[in-house]
Amino acid sequence: MINFTELSRSYLNLIWKIINMHTSQYMLSTLKEISTDVEVISHQLMLRAGMIRQLASGLYSWLPTGLQVLRKVEKIVREEMNNAGAIEVFMPIVQPADIWQKSKRWVQYGSELLRFIDRGARSFVLGPTHEEVITDLIRNEICSYKQLPLNFYQIQTKFRDELRPRFGVMRSREFLMKDAYSFHTNQDSLQITYDVMYQTYSNILNRMGLQFRAVQADTGSIGGSVSHEFHVLADSGEDYIVFSTSSNYAANIELAEAKDQVILRADPKEKMRLVDTNEACTLAKILEKFAIPVEKTVKTMLVRAKKNAIHPLLALIVRGDHHISDVKAAKILQVAAPLNFASEEEIRLFFGTRSDYIGPVNLQVPIIIDRSVAVMSDFTAGANADGKYFLGINWERDLPLPQVADLRKVSAGDRSPDGKGTLQIKRGIEVGHIFQLGTKYSDAMKAYVQNEEGRNKTLIMGCYGIGITRVVAAAIEQNHDDKGILWTESLAPFNVAIIPINMHNSFRVQQIAEEVYQQLKARGIDVILDDRKERPGVMFADMELIGIPHLLVIGDYNLNTGNIEYKNRRNGNKKIIKLGAIVDFILSEMATSFYKC
Amino acid sequence: MINFTELSRSYLNLIWKIINMHTSQYMLSTLKEISTDVEVISHQLMLRAGMIRQLASGLYSWLPTGLQVLRKVEKIVREEMNNAGAIEVFMPIVQPADIWQKSKRWVQYGSELLRFIDRGARSFVLGPTHEEVITDLIRNEICSYKQLPLNFYQIQTKFRDELRPRFGVMRSREFLMKDAYSFHTNQDSLQITYDVMYQTYSNILNRMGLQFRAVQADTGSIGGSVSHEFHVLADSGEDYIVFSTSSNYAANIELAEAKDQVILRADPKEKMRLVDTNEACTLAKILEKFAIPVEKTVKTMLVRAKKNAIHPLLALIVRGDHHISDVKAAKILQVAAPLNFASEEEIRLFFGTRSDYIGPVNLQVPIIIDRSVAVMSDFTAGANADGKYFLGINWERDLPLPQVADLRKVSAGDRSPDGKGTLQIKRGIEVGHIFQLGTKYSDAMKAYVQNEEGRNKTLIMGCYGIGITRVVAAAIEQNHDDKGILWTESLAPFNVAIIPINMHNSFRVQQIAEEVYQQLKARGIDVILDDRKERPGVMFADMELIGIPHLLVIGDYNLNTGNIEYKNRRNGNKKIIKLGAIVDFILSEMATSFYKC
Repeated sequence: MINFTELSRSYLNLIWKIINMHTSQYMLSTLKEISTDVEVISHQLMLRAGMIRQLASGLYSWLPTGLQVLRKVEKIVREEMNNAGAIEVFMPIVQPADIWQKSKRWVQYGSELLRFIDRGARSFVLGPTHEEVITDLIRNEICSYKQLPLNFYQIQTKFRDELRPRFGVMRSREFLMKDAYSFHTNQDSLQITYDVMYQTYSNILNRMGLQFRAVQADTGSIGGSVSHEFHVLADSGEDYIVFSTSSNYAANIELAEAKDQVILRADPKEKMRLVDTNEACTLAKILEKFAIPVEKTVKTMLVRAKKNAIHPLLALIVRGDHHISDVKAAKILQVAAPLNFASEEEIRLFFGTRSDYIGPVNLQVPIIIDRSVAVMSDFTAGANADGKYFLGINWERDLPLPQVADLRKVSAGDRSPDGKGTLQIKRGIEVGHIFQLGTKYSDAMKAYVQNEEGRNKTLIMGCYGIGITRVVAAAIEQNHDDKGILWTESLAPFNVAIIPINMHNSFRVQQIAEEVYQQLKARGIDVILDDRKERPGVMFADMELIGIPHLLVIGDYNLNTGNIEYKNRRNGNKKIIKLGAIVDFILSEMATSFYKC
Repeated sequence: MINFTELSRSYLNLIWKIINMHTSQYMLSTLKEISTDVEVISHQLMLRAGMIRQLASGLYSWLPTGLQVLRKVEKIVREEMNNAGAIEVFMPIVQPADIWQKSKRWVQYGSELLRFIDRGARSFVLGPTHEEVITDLIRNEICSYKQLPLNFYQIQTKFRDELRPRFGVMRSREFLMKDAYSFHTNQDSLQITYDVMYQTYSNILNRMGLQFRAVQADTGSIGGSVSHEFHVLADSGEDYIVFSTSSNYAANIELAEAKDQVILRADPKEKMRLVDTNEACTLAKILEKFAIPVEKTVKTMLVRAKKNAIHPLLALIVRGDHHISDVKAAKILQVAAPLNFASEEEIRLFFGTRSDYIGPVNLQVPIIIDRSVAVMSDFTAGANADGKYFLGINWERDLPLPQVADLRKVSAGDRSPDGKGTLQIKRGIEVGHIFQLGTKYSDAMKAYVQNEEGRNKTLIMGCYGIGITRVVAAAIEQNHDDKGILWTESLAPFNVAIIPINMHNSFRVQQIAEEVYQQLKARGIDVILDDRKERPGVMFADMELIGIPHLLVIGDYNLNTGNIEYKNRRNGNKKIIKLGAIVDFILSEMATSFYKC
């Protein structure tokens, strides 16, 4: 053992601090090549930049560079939540089954809820969210309306046993989430906190320098009434979100109402006639042959009805050029999304044909049609027999008008549901979701407080989530180029990289690089010095891949004139800077670009 | 929705910040009464002070006051680990079975390892430590000796399925741990990092203001050779640790060698004789009747031998006044600690008597005796028959001398194993443990790097753990009085509590309290203002229970003369302070008491 009475603590600190953020003493772990089955760009770049590594499907270790970013996301979220008066707590990941049974989600949640037993054969779950735990906690701690409203949050690991974990940390099984839960005695109070959270989430994403939109959304398995999703805009987003060209209207495409114009159905012009093709003939060919536009056809989908329904199957019909909304249809059918479509085997068994040939005429199951289908006339559909189609179908002449509902996803150019302007569609990555839960959990778990009259009043709840790990991936999806990641100033793992040229053969370069490093460090700037014995090209490529916003190149060729070279990662601008002016220059660059994308 | 274009962000911040650390907008959650089955004082105080709540056996939610302390522990640990050049990473809690099978701990770890299957029937564990994950990670990232040494750490949730979770967060199932893992190509390099970690752990506990000792320890199920435990000293500690009066020697009692003086065994003076008592007669009565001191008796314990041993049972014998060391005995028997003692049923079956009457004479199993037993003469032991004892037994006359080993725990006053001085015994709570692992994991998991000659070299590892959540409980075990917790300055949830007297009827008190709060806050001091409508006695009791080091009492009775009253929580000293001098006074009190207990 070294005698530490001789090695003073400050001396040790000195040794280690100096070598701390030098690449030689850091695990940079950049990769030139990665497996070709990595689908999305953020996943590719996070692997290549040495941010994450996969341990198993949907399970990732965060390497130093990735963790630096993750901690910055956490810090921004924590500060803004604190500013919004939310109180931080920390609840267990492992949760006992009994509270999930009380809320009924033990059954409802489905197989994404990982259930297991401990050594004593007691049942537990790995928490995918914490509504049950916080409600159980609060009903024991809070007894009077006077203590409310309160809003609690935590930043904690969650687990969802995804059927198909994919896209790296975008849809992993274990992930970090900031989840908050607010408690109220009336709806007005909930609305105020909900609005504060809406604003807080906007502040958080603004501070991160991300382009985002908040949209009306479905409440899904969490429950409740009102909810908004926060989407980081990115061409690769899994979700489609719609906006009005002329108002503040914004919603998830699954939820946006299709305001189909209530126009009168045109009178029939054609007779209904059966076309018998050979089996190989596709609908497309029929349409071509008879010059029928796709808007004059319908798609008929067979889905499983809710339990104990009279008919096990139902037919949902939308126009040929439209897409069904799972969320809208599931609500109408009173089943959980996503929809459960009948298989080809079942269709063959029940209807004696393929799904392609299913149509509404003489179909022996209940039918629901989209509003836009209700106004069609002289349309084409399958005839429920192999190779056969009906042309010139008309409602109320050839078959009764079935139940009509809003079933489809809106399309670009549709009227905005608020009547103002038309809809645009963009792709987004959902990073946040806020809900007005109402009394779903407090009713089930008997969470009451005494009101002004001393009577029991069921708590009204809100809940508010941000995917901490997912934000990192979403930021990359929005901010990258062909060289790598383009970090915004507030999320960059390091704001400045020092690249010394030929430092291992030039004492001057080594000395100046170290001096600049210490100067920047002393001003609180996150800086990394690349002191590896690598060619300048390798160092450049690595720092650009990792996405460090500001690069400082130090070499004898410039030091001779007392200068160094600066390069901006995002716009590629280069500049020669005097040695003495570096810190001020960097601080000014950081300040002007701070919230910019 | 409130129109946020009107409510500017800074205005919102202002509203919320002001109400932030006032008890009326905080969840204080102190309790007067708690369940009587809560055993240890830290657990009692953490419940009463509103720091934690139990969700289920061994699972705790951290309430705001507890989390404040936990975050301070984390911050100190993180800063000191960074200062020591360790690099932070973040690894999954859920770990696939295959890496545990590779290291063989899948079987070895026993039932504390929580194993489960996911929806695809693949096997996983909830990580109790991360040796496997980090070794798997590093063997893929590091390829050359030039990249080493490296030391990685994380602060992450662990899970151990304790048979009997108890003492609150002291022995919970889910807990936070700082675990670090270092990688080397030679023992000298490991020794340097090990020594740095030893010093870092000392720095961490010193900064927390805790009295502690580092002691030599057993390596247990983690494996490896050298290890040290860090114990916070507390009368309630579960562990016994021993120190020399005259040297630096310190060890866990299970490990400390009993340096029994090698003196010649005295010649037999008595004849061996059988005493036949009635069954109800205890050993104590025999000793009394024949005036035999307890040092002249032996205790014989029957334990299960290792698998495939010729005899399934073994006898271990220590002197009547000594205690067997599980760890020492387990090493000699080559079994895992704790020892597996034969049951009374088994003893009756094999030997036809009770365990009380078992003794070495004519015992038909292998015997190992403690060194101090080997030098006994004319001693007393059971005669392996109900109610019968032998008196005056002598080795090598009445029975052969069996195998001799160091089996017992040392006693206070024993010679120090280093030959310098005698041993003292204290009780401690293990909060940290550092290990020289060697190649246990890197061998099993094929973690190699290329050495100077380009050949594969197995990595040499160290690992270093601190129980983040346990430190909080240990600090309380060491620092409390009959009123509640006595926080050290660096761990206190708040350093200052403002207690306004009759504030809801005195605008002046309210105004001054708020001003003092803002002044302290502006200087970065963690302060809480108790603005509840409670009697002064209730507020005092709560703040003393929670353990806030500095109390400021603001009331009209003192404001009339421009003063407030200060009370020091630890020493009870009171002082009248001028209004304008409060901040400086508090800063000076904090500075002088910062590292003090």
